[in-house]
Amino acid sequence: MLVNGKNYRTLWIKDNVVNIIDQTKLPFKFEIKKLKKLKDFCDAISKMWVRGAPLIGVTAAYGLAMCIKELPNKENIETVYKKLFYTRPTAVNLAWTLNILKKELLKEDISKRKKLAFDICHKILEDDVKSSIQIAKNGFRIIEAMYKKKKKPINILTHCNAGWLATIDWGTALAPIYMAKRKKIPVHVWVDETRPRNQGSQLTAWELKNEKIPYTIIVDNAGGYLMQYGKVDLCIVGSDRTALNGDVCNKIGTYLKALASRHNSIPFYVALPSSTIDCKLSSGVKKIPIEERDGSELSMVKTFKNNKVYDSRIFFQDANVFNPAFDVTPARLVTGLITEYGICKPNKKSILNQIDFKNHEK
Amino acid sequence: MLVNGKNYRTLWIKDNVVNIIDQTKLPFKFEIKKLKKLKDFCDAISKMWVRGAPLIGVTAAYGLAMCIKELPNKENIETVYKKLFYTRPTAVNLAWTLNILKKELLKEDISKRKKLAFDICHKILEDDVKSSIQIAKNGFRIIEAMYKKKKKPINILTHCNAGWLATIDWGTALAPIYMAKRKKIPVHVWVDETRPRNQGSQLTAWELKNEKIPYTIIVDNAGGYLMQYGKVDLCIVGSDRTALNGDVCNKIGTYLKALASRHNSIPFYVALPSSTIDCKLSSGVKKIPIEERDGSELSMVKTFKNNKVYDSRIFFQDANVFNPAFDVTPARLVTGLITEYGICKPNKKSILNQIDFKNHEK
Repeated sequence: MLVNGKNYRTLWIKDNVVNIIDQTKLPFKFEIKKLKKLKDFCDAISKMWVRGAPLIGVTAAYGLAMCIKELPNKENIETVYKKLFYTRPTAVNLAWTLNILKKELLKEDISKRKKLAFDICHKILEDDVKSSIQIAKNGFRIIEAMYKKKKKPINILTHCNAGWLATIDWGTALAPIYMAKRKKIPVHVWVDETRPRNQGSQLTAWELKNEKIPYTIIVDNAGGYLMQYGKVDLCIVGSDRTALNGDVCNKIGTYLKALASRHNSIPFYVALPSSTIDCKLSSGVKKIPIEERDGSELSMVKTFKNNKVYDSRIFFQDANVFNPAFDVTPARLVTGLITEYGICKPNKKSILNQIDFKNHEK
Repeated sequence: MLVNGKNYRTLWIKDNVVNIIDQTKLPFKFEIKKLKKLKDFCDAISKMWVRGAPLIGVTAAYGLAMCIKELPNKENIETVYKKLFYTRPTAVNLAWTLNILKKELLKEDISKRKKLAFDICHKILEDDVKSSIQIAKNGFRIIEAMYKKKKKPINILTHCNAGWLATIDWGTALAPIYMAKRKKIPVHVWVDETRPRNQGSQLTAWELKNEKIPYTIIVDNAGGYLMQYGKVDLCIVGSDRTALNGDVCNKIGTYLKALASRHNSIPFYVALPSSTIDCKLSSGVKKIPIEERDGSELSMVKTFKNNKVYDSRIFFQDANVFNPAFDVTPARLVTGLITEYGICKPNKKSILNQIDFKNHEK
């Protein structure tokens, strides 16, 4: 997608080095980081220079490929695998890509492992892009149909950042919006700030601005009001983990927007690569363990002054804080799931009917 | 209420000068400001050194009394009245106290106006305290009844700051909580951060900490999650304006919490002085005009470093922002209204039955 008019992906190889965008500096600075050593890759994931389940998975895979290329024996593969695996233990895609890679490498003759590792990485990366483009096409049909009826710009509310920055390209929740732009269907996006980490105001708004898509930043509190006044035609959010019954685990606050959508009869769609569907999970509410993150994510905020990015304190130091990172939206509040396979209803039958889980190796 | 163990109100007279707490500096600094001239009073209201409908009303009244005492003729009363009136044109209590005062003063002989003005101000102030204490007692019954059943600390979620800082003393939504503390009923308060102005994390948390009441700050996004997991027994919020059918206009985001409460069968109470009930307003949803405030309230945040309070930028400068200050919660999501008269149902019949509107001169 576009950054200052130039096309980028979130990860690319140049001169045998992995390049990524340091997302902790966005939207204030666009800084590219070069990853060479194992420590670089571990830092990239644990310090959240890269974020979003698909991008974390791809970065970890390239980390493994890069760091075993000189010494692709079993011992080194295991060592590197473990280091990368424990950078963010709750990330499903990270485990998924690392497991695939390790399994395939260990099956292959040691002399061919280096090439195989990069081949697999490239395939994972390109598959992710293809998947996002399919999500874009499938979700676009919803926007297009609405526009044909309304004949005015479609107002879409989104939460957090499920844009290209969270994947390799295109994104998930934002992908249909980018497709609408390309197909000249006018849209306007309400961007939830998304406390505590502000991925909406800092990443989603930045993406949309660069793609020249009309957007407006709002506080997370404002969505219900906008819906009451008919200012929202459609919600699209992403998913970090999806249960087989259609319950959706996504950034904290998603559930509140789903409730307001239902109360105001506004369609609420979740866009996700089918890799986030956990077939072993029959339902999600109170079943998916929710990551509790450090309270400093609330008390400190990323600020910008004199061309520098700071961590600044916004409430007193010894305050008690609780910081759950995700919540689960029950399937009955979800209108549909947009995946690379199409649009399906949030229930087991519809999911199993549409999605080919044979491709999933977890 | 207590600040570092010492009792304070939000406004008091000392040496013929009006003293207030500069709430824009809280929770980082406890600074008392002395109001003497008309400009001081106008600044106090427009720069939000004081905030909360009741406190704004009382401050404006004292402003009028102080600034006409040397020259209490009709012309000067009108001039001062207008200056104060337009400091925050949407504040109902401000208009209410100023109108009462002006009307009574103009009826009185010019020589007796100075004394009358202060007499009325003192009465408004003491009435506000009495009203808050009655709200405290009435709301306390709900907490007490819950505790008798649960026999464990009652978890109460509140939004924004409807504490003593918003009134003269005790507050509205927090008043029953302070009463519970005094009556030794254990409570724990979930404090919504309350974006964009962070009154929850900066004022409510500070109040509770000073009163030694257990509290935890959460992002506005987290309330739904907590309710799903049974971590909230009760919601109590304030109201800026209440329609006769029980629709409640309060800080943006209140509506989302009311939805989540309903969805999880959690009682949702609104504590309010009956002066916020607008008898001319038969319903509130889409009827009450919602103040749209400056976008800089989202893009800039109050931060603290090296003992100084700063305004710091948290997203890029030219971003599009929409900042509605309030939303309206429909009466059907409200369990009950806690006023100085008692607890009533959110409907016209119950409100008119319980509340004596003869005292209301608007």
